Amino acid sequence: MPRRPGPRGSYAKTPKRREEILDAAFGVFARYGYLNSSMSEIAKRAGMTMPGVTHHFPTKAGLLEAVLRERDLDAASHLEGRRGVELLRGVLEIAERDEQDRGLTQLFAILSAEATIDDHPAHAYFRDRYELILRTVRTAFLEAQEDGHLRPDVDPGDAAQMCIALSDGLQLQRLYGVDRARQWALTKRLLDSLLIRPVTSSD
Amino acid sequence: MPRRPGPRGSYAKTPKRREEILDAAFGVFARYGYLNSSMSEIAKRAGMTMPGVTHHFPTKAGLLEAVLRERDLDAASHLEGRRGVELLRGVLEIAERDEQDRGLTQLFAILSAEATIDDHPAHAYFRDRYELILRTVRTAFLEAQEDGHLRPDVDPGDAAQMCIALSDGLQLQRLYGVDRARQWALTKRLLDSLLIRPVTSSD
Repeated sequence: MPRRPGPRGSYAKTPKRREEILDAAFGVFARYGYLNSSMSEIAKRAGMTMPGVTHHFPTKAGLLEAVLRERDLDAASHLEGRRGVELLRGVLEIAERDEQDRGLTQLFAILSAEATIDDHPAHAYFRDRYELILRTVRTAFLEAQEDGHLRPDVDPGDAAQMCIALSDGLQLQRLYGVDRARQWALTKRLLDSLLIRPVTSSD
Repeated sequence: MPRRPGPRGSYAKTPKRREEILDAAFGVFARYGYLNSSMSEIAKRAGMTMPGVTHHFPTKAGLLEAVLRERDLDAASHLEGRRGVELLRGVLEIAERDEQDRGLTQLFAILSAEATIDDHPAHAYFRDRYELILRTVRTAFLEAQEDGHLRPDVDPGDAAQMCIALSDGLQLQRLYGVDRARQWALTKRLLDSLLIRPVTSSD
């Protein structure tokens, strides 16, 4: 958006500043984890003063939450309105897209491990996020079952846990440069072993 | 070992002191991750002075490496002399045992994520560890293939990556209290989907 002259200029810049802070925070958290990141490092990377940052985000914990929730909105909107096998295909597409983004993968890998500690400021966020993802994917497998697409010996809850665990574990392997840590291909392989027809076949 | 009187007493105590430091360090690293742990906190928990600790372990990085390698020796000795499906069964047994130990799971989850950063002192350790585990499990699947136990459409390398990733991902779910994050049962389920006969059936 072009900057406008006059008194409204500083207001018009606010959403842009917020974005710049979130981008800088994302980079710093992905590099150092939450516990080792500082607001001053984030301000430095955003090219701002500390008061400039705390005006938008008074606490580091609030800033972390804003970074995480922003990334989740993308995924949620990608899955909206889908059900059953179609939703599982959407989960695969998200995995394929995330595979290109090392910073994002590293942010979630480091923070989700760090936040296993009960009193970590992102603990509730990650616990709720796991519950939401598991519930969403389990519902998709239940719907696939209703639609006659799930193999008869597969439990929808087990299937959901396995898919999400596989995906998280492959992300970690990829961060260690494991050759062929092909998150998309191997998650598809697991899905195909649970479904009657390949997940990417047309209905 | 009972303490002996006389001048050899202080020597006899050395291995015990080392163990106490390693136990204290294990607890502190599992609680805070490596980056947020301090040698003074470890000394405090071990009931020793800082010089007492640094006499045995001059650096925090060296202490971390000793903690990690100690835990690996157990696993290596459990798998020694096994091959093929027998070795895969051993990997399952280790998963079953680790499932009881939240501290150990948390230590590996937090450190392995934290150490994805290239210049983390445990980066090389975890990279090498992943390579070793992947190679070991891939070899087991190759041997299972030679022995006619692998399903014909399964690639041994893919199978190894999937088993290890699933196991890591389920550990993380368990740390968030996900109900039924049954590492053993679901890893067995995956193994069974790759092998011709159930992994726990007798040969």
